[in-house]
Amino acid sequence: MTPPFRRLALIGCGLIGGSIARAARAHGLADEIVATAHTQALCDRVAELGLADRVELYPARAVVGADCVMLCTPVGAYADLATAIAPHLAAGAILSDVGSTKQSVIRDVGPLVPAGVHFVPAHPLAGTEHSGPDAGFATLFEGRWCLLTPPPGTDAASVARIEAFWRAMGSMVSVMEPAHHDRVLAIVSHLPHLIAFTICGTADDLADETRQQVLQFAATGFRDFTRIAASDPDMWRDVFLNNREALLEMLARFTEDAQAMARAVRWGDAGYIEDRIGRGRKIRRSLIELKQA
Amino acid sequence: MTPPFRRLALIGCGLIGGSIARAARAHGLADEIVATAHTQALCDRVAELGLADRVELYPARAVVGADCVMLCTPVGAYADLATAIAPHLAAGAILSDVGSTKQSVIRDVGPLVPAGVHFVPAHPLAGTEHSGPDAGFATLFEGRWCLLTPPPGTDAASVARIEAFWRAMGSMVSVMEPAHHDRVLAIVSHLPHLIAFTICGTADDLADETRQQVLQFAATGFRDFTRIAASDPDMWRDVFLNNREALLEMLARFTEDAQAMARAVRWGDAGYIEDRIGRGRKIRRSLIELKQA
Repeated sequence: MTPPFRRLALIGCGLIGGSIARAARAHGLADEIVATAHTQALCDRVAELGLADRVELYPARAVVGADCVMLCTPVGAYADLATAIAPHLAAGAILSDVGSTKQSVIRDVGPLVPAGVHFVPAHPLAGTEHSGPDAGFATLFEGRWCLLTPPPGTDAASVARIEAFWRAMGSMVSVMEPAHHDRVLAIVSHLPHLIAFTICGTADDLADETRQQVLQFAATGFRDFTRIAASDPDMWRDVFLNNREALLEMLARFTEDAQAMARAVRWGDAGYIEDRIGRGRKIRRSLIELKQA
Repeated sequence: MTPPFRRLALIGCGLIGGSIARAARAHGLADEIVATAHTQALCDRVAELGLADRVELYPARAVVGADCVMLCTPVGAYADLATAIAPHLAAGAILSDVGSTKQSVIRDVGPLVPAGVHFVPAHPLAGTEHSGPDAGFATLFEGRWCLLTPPPGTDAASVARIEAFWRAMGSMVSVMEPAHHDRVLAIVSHLPHLIAFTICGTADDLADETRQQVLQFAATGFRDFTRIAASDPDMWRDVFLNNREALLEMLARFTEDAQAMARAVRWGDAGYIEDRIGRGRKIRRSLIELKQA
């Protein structure tokens, strides 16, 4: 058992930060937890929920004396955050994060990390469609993957500390190359979210009468899409903008495939349609075998 | 309380037919249930499960003397089925179905319905990603909509019988114009399924290494898509081919919207992305208010 962090600073305390706070406390992973939120009202709520020993509005104050700092805000805020906290990071501290895009995080934060601070980017593949400090819970990461994407030359002991931290919260941990991470996540998570947001908009644009009936008769398929589409808008805007190339590539591949399906529907090519449906089922079966579904 | 059917013939006894058999028995809606399945092995399984009083391989035999016949096969089989059973339908019988497309059903079955037989097309908006007689359960239709699309001039008493039948199984019932039904279902159900099948295929086409990691790290978004994509291939092939115009229109609208989203991602138009995400959340909220989510 690795010793707990003396002071864990969570920059942002929404669904993910709030869940880390709860889980770290539940498993004794930090002697002291300091959390920030980006409005005074949210700070008050985090304090009311008792998620941290201390709540700060200003990240630069929160990181002082912390031996581990985790960025838990939408990734679009990281560059400004890193600028604000860099001068205040303790020597030897570990700086980590939970962002869904990793090349952008390394691009935005990496150059600002002071010498003697160890930067270990991480991404827990966990979440719900809810957001904010009330949405978090201590078991969110149990049985879910956390991917670490340390840049070459990262201090191995710091990577091991972060790995141990996530394992202690119940996660499985894997190390991945950042560009590869971004491509894999583009297809398994970012594109599905883009599609879900889009189809909800498409439905919303239909004529008024149809839209009401869309809502009234929403069948299983559409309900699942709206569940995904209820996710945090700030987070997802930033994900899309910060994994642009991989996301656009996966969308282009998907669009080609959807057009091929459309052509098969138009020309009555039953064999092609069956083949594509069969592939979906095959992936589903593989997922079940891997116990992810 | 409407009197039960004397003999209910279910043509096809998979997820939907098998659920009707269970629910009709549970609620005393038929004195006798006759079911068909399209292979002897499936017939044996239906008999083993005790879903019907009599199991027949040949639909023409099953419908004899039935005062209600329900087609519960993929819609692509309806034309041949109607041809086979038409000469054997009892005078005064109600012929109904559970197909997901209604214009095609009226096109394929309508002209074959003998005089004196009342044709009441229906579509229960219920299902799971599982299929076959084992997958059915008696409560599948509870709290779900069943849409009736009777052609103009349909016997009102027969429509009322079918409506009462579905209400007795726990469904809410609404009457809808067939073309309107097909458009609404295209956006709430058929397009989401086409998208889910397609994205699973897109993922499957990725290079081998990435694909394994796709499976290993499938996040919430993708798992929901694969759940949808596990649905019955024969049923969905037939749905796509039999709601072609509405499905292609909705796919075209969706593709335009996805391209607009892609452009916003490429050019960093955060406001546009936020607006589209906001629409998804709005639809989600409306669904929750309507108690469908």
